[in-house]
Amino acid sequence: METLWESRYAQRTQRMGSSAIRELLKLTEKPDIISFGGGMPAPDVFPVEDFAAACDRVLGEFGAQALQYGATDGYLPLREMIARHTGRYGIKITPDNILITSGSQQALDLIGKVFINPGDRILVEEPTYLGALQAWNAYGAEYVTVPMDENGMISEALEETLRAGPKFIYVLPNFQNPTGVTLSVERRQALIEMADRYGVPVIEDDPYGQLRYEGCHLPSVVTLDGQFRETGSAPYRGNVIYLSTFSKILSPGIRLAWVIAPQEVIRKLVQAKQGADLHTATFNQMVAYEVSRGGFLDRHVWMIRRVYQERRDAMLEAMEDFFPEETSWTHPQGGLFLWSTMPKGMNSKKVLEKAIEQKVAFVPGESFYARGGGENTMRLNFSFAKPEIIRLGIERLGKVIKEQLQVKSLH
Amino acid sequence: METLWESRYAQRTQRMGSSAIRELLKLTEKPDIISFGGGMPAPDVFPVEDFAAACDRVLGEFGAQALQYGATDGYLPLREMIARHTGRYGIKITPDNILITSGSQQALDLIGKVFINPGDRILVEEPTYLGALQAWNAYGAEYVTVPMDENGMISEALEETLRAGPKFIYVLPNFQNPTGVTLSVERRQALIEMADRYGVPVIEDDPYGQLRYEGCHLPSVVTLDGQFRETGSAPYRGNVIYLSTFSKILSPGIRLAWVIAPQEVIRKLVQAKQGADLHTATFNQMVAYEVSRGGFLDRHVWMIRRVYQERRDAMLEAMEDFFPEETSWTHPQGGLFLWSTMPKGMNSKKVLEKAIEQKVAFVPGESFYARGGGENTMRLNFSFAKPEIIRLGIERLGKVIKEQLQVKSLH
Repeated sequence: METLWESRYAQRTQRMGSSAIRELLKLTEKPDIISFGGGMPAPDVFPVEDFAAACDRVLGEFGAQALQYGATDGYLPLREMIARHTGRYGIKITPDNILITSGSQQALDLIGKVFINPGDRILVEEPTYLGALQAWNAYGAEYVTVPMDENGMISEALEETLRAGPKFIYVLPNFQNPTGVTLSVERRQALIEMADRYGVPVIEDDPYGQLRYEGCHLPSVVTLDGQFRETGSAPYRGNVIYLSTFSKILSPGIRLAWVIAPQEVIRKLVQAKQGADLHTATFNQMVAYEVSRGGFLDRHVWMIRRVYQERRDAMLEAMEDFFPEETSWTHPQGGLFLWSTMPKGMNSKKVLEKAIEQKVAFVPGESFYARGGGENTMRLNFSFAKPEIIRLGIERLGKVIKEQLQVKSLH
Repeated sequence: METLWESRYAQRTQRMGSSAIRELLKLTEKPDIISFGGGMPAPDVFPVEDFAAACDRVLGEFGAQALQYGATDGYLPLREMIARHTGRYGIKITPDNILITSGSQQALDLIGKVFINPGDRILVEEPTYLGALQAWNAYGAEYVTVPMDENGMISEALEETLRAGPKFIYVLPNFQNPTGVTLSVERRQALIEMADRYGVPVIEDDPYGQLRYEGCHLPSVVTLDGQFRETGSAPYRGNVIYLSTFSKILSPGIRLAWVIAPQEVIRKLVQAKQGADLHTATFNQMVAYEVSRGGFLDRHVWMIRRVYQERRDAMLEAMEDFFPEETSWTHPQGGLFLWSTMPKGMNSKKVLEKAIEQKVAFVPGESFYARGGGENTMRLNFSFAKPEIIRLGIERLGKVIKEQLQVKSLH
């Protein structure tokens, strides 16, 4: 039965339509399916006992504060800790440069609310993080895209696209979601140099930066921006807004992330957050602070890296063994995802339908394309399942792809 | 130093400006000021130990689930519990009619995102809840207002305003924020009848419904809508979206609330929430469920009522003793707030400035007027401070008002 609401949706609501892919992925939530679809941390790495101890301490010592309303910008000791942590990566900020958000998804939403007018063009990688597109579609964003290779956004294409006058550049430099690709340091420098030349600011989304399994840490874009035309120390220059999160290094179920931005931008984001959810849960911020302080996070991240590296290696090895030679894939140096490309003409949505019958799933790549494309690509998550399950799932998926390649060659 | 961001704010961001009042209220956060300004629960009533026990059980038994990503619509046992609770008030819904949100503020934001086109007129009480205006201003809402008396929105004025063709009606029927006034049952029925006649749906915001200190529970608007043209049981008819929250009966610091709406509307709100923060913290939902089940909330609410009734009575008695006879105030049957009106020509912002000097604070009433007005009114919170502190604060405030009345009469 139709209610009075159904004729009253806002225009922007048309752009939020549930995708066919989301419907397909719901099928993959059954326990007997090996899913490479989500972006979930391994439950094995959650520090459950440390969490329980932290809850006890926070409630025992500061119970009334933890259960009360809190400040919109976030719990000060947590912001101070993040400022110190950021300082270790060579960028000097104060707690006034930090806003605590309910996951990075909220940071993307608030950025959309504060900056995007309907019709504004946002420069994104091709492919890019689906959640950013979801957040910004609601504000009427349009997109201009820059193709990538194994070193990230191609600088020549970036320069050309900057001439379209985008509102800002959105980039995931480390182990990008969805491709797993890392932006090379030369291209990071070129990005900052071009952003400066064209006067276009940058959003650097870095949920996985700590999860590197090989090679050396590369300076983040926000750090390079600080060093631009400077030598020695790096003050925060303000043209890069930097996002990171506790989701992949502690727990996604507590919804806790942070934004680093110029103070004036933080003030606007705080106003937007006040209207959006008043503040992020006080209790969660205090517990996360309590768990993290005293060096726990550093030790914990070492353990996560070891576990995920083993899973990445298991997936890469299984792909060598079971994927047809017509497919290619990325070799991520960190993060949670890799990206596979089948021959042109293959359709990963069709492959997913067949794969689900064989009890294995992934995300078809075209969801990550802001302007269409990528029908022959897929994103595979390697953080969630154990190595032996990964091997079994990749064996099944390899078989399905081979069958589909045959079907295609017969037509 | 100006960054590249400052010239790039969206048009809607202009409407989010930080108010002078908010700046004034920051001054009231000092510990030596008696603040009737916030809307905070008493820290004394937080069930800290029950919370600690629930955290232990949730992490001990379901740790990996509690720290993992969860479904956007919310933790199913919690939604089932809310559906059962709603059933007790005579309205039959299923968990598919429920969305868990990060506080009711998020529910207001998502409703704005899904329903409000720039320029849409929303019908609100005069005065109304400031947070709704904050949320909806960001989506370009305009407002039409209906004046209130001691029984809530005046029905004749409501009917006239409905002719302006508002998108929806927003009403807080129980112990309204800011006035503390309760919409009479006759007017609730008239509201439903008119909403039906004019084809305008209703949002019922009910954060305080459980906190009644005298008189009988009145049927909520959503219940009356179900009973409209029916007899006996009340199926959910869908033209009223109902909001409530754990903030005032358990803890605001866990940011947990819920929306009851038609399934199709829930689906749209879920899509909007996916872009806004993916989902509300899994851990908090599981802990709130664990604390609440087995009848704990019913017992706990009894205790809160006793504490707040004493504080309301202390404030009313002190106002009788210390407020000048030229002022009037409401007698709330429940909730957290009462509302005082000074003679015309008095300015509550000026009174606040003087009051802060005397170490007492409140919220000037004009913030709650969607279209201006209310300069001689103030909102007073009675839930936060203990009775003897309330008496002291009202004594101070009464003195300030008397002085300002004299200043005015001298001019």
